[in-house]
Amino acid sequence: MIQIREATAEDWPQIYPFWSEIVEAGETYAYPEGLTSEEARDLWMYDHVVVAVEGSAEDEHILGSAKMGPNRPGRGSHIGTASFMVSPAARGKGLGRTLGDYCVQWHKDNGFHGIQFNAVVETNTTAVRLWQSLGFQIIGTVPDAFDSTSHGRVGLHVMYLPLT
Amino acid sequence: MIQIREATAEDWPQIYPFWSEIVEAGETYAYPEGLTSEEARDLWMYDHVVVAVEGSAEDEHILGSAKMGPNRPGRGSHIGTASFMVSPAARGKGLGRTLGDYCVQWHKDNGFHGIQFNAVVETNTTAVRLWQSLGFQIIGTVPDAFDSTSHGRVGLHVMYLPLT
Repeated sequence: MIQIREATAEDWPQIYPFWSEIVEAGETYAYPEGLTSEEARDLWMYDHVVVAVEGSAEDEHILGSAKMGPNRPGRGSHIGTASFMVSPAARGKGLGRTLGDYCVQWHKDNGFHGIQFNAVVETNTTAVRLWQSLGFQIIGTVPDAFDSTSHGRVGLHVMYLPLT
Repeated sequence: MIQIREATAEDWPQIYPFWSEIVEAGETYAYPEGLTSEEARDLWMYDHVVVAVEGSAEDEHILGSAKMGPNRPGRGSHIGTASFMVSPAARGKGLGRTLGDYCVQWHKDNGFHGIQFNAVVETNTTAVRLWQSLGFQIIGTVPDAFDSTSHGRVGLHVMYLPLT
């Protein structure tokens, strides 16, 4: 059974392998490539970070992670944002949806007025369809803004879900 | 005569007063409010920063500043972005256009494929019209994403200018 719990600093060594595998694959995220574990940690482990885990407390495996928080400071802080990483080895278990549902509820519980995704790669159709199924709409698409390994230059969607 | 030159660390004490005046006015930027000069400096003085100046070398006045660089790291770094601050005391001199023209040329000279503005406040019509006159288009608008002092919740435009 998959559960979601808050991440702790001790979780990072289990997150980093799939985090870096996903970034290096070059299909979904515009993080710098070739980061050390410490550098990557500083880009992921802030705001509210959760992990999706399987197994008993004694033999727990981290299958995915999500981070969420305000999309902008100050006068933009009522809109949230989030990022998601699901271990490629754990695909097909519905983890994206489980983490996405958690993310929407977390933003509601914390009084956010909406959730904005700033850069959803248009060829990442699994993600695009998942967010659409949660109610997100494509606000617009910046053309050729992401250099995908297998597709070349593709667009980045700005997606938005109003919560009030 | 107004000139644009690269900013140096010594320029910040002249930038900070209008920078903070603009942020505190709450109409155009979602920076945190109430920042110290040092905190604000760290949010502005990185990547390529320029100032618009007037006067002789011995009696120079900084009237505005712009910063520019990649909008995202890694696979998004071929698209640039920029931010602009014009001293309220120097409005009406065409500084926004002068800095905007410089910004477009700088991105061309440095091989960027486009320029993306992530959060142009829709009620900041002077800026919206200026960027449109430079060829930027509104890609989409995130509704109610900015809490404006005088207008309440208003939208944030994503604007884009292709350069290739």
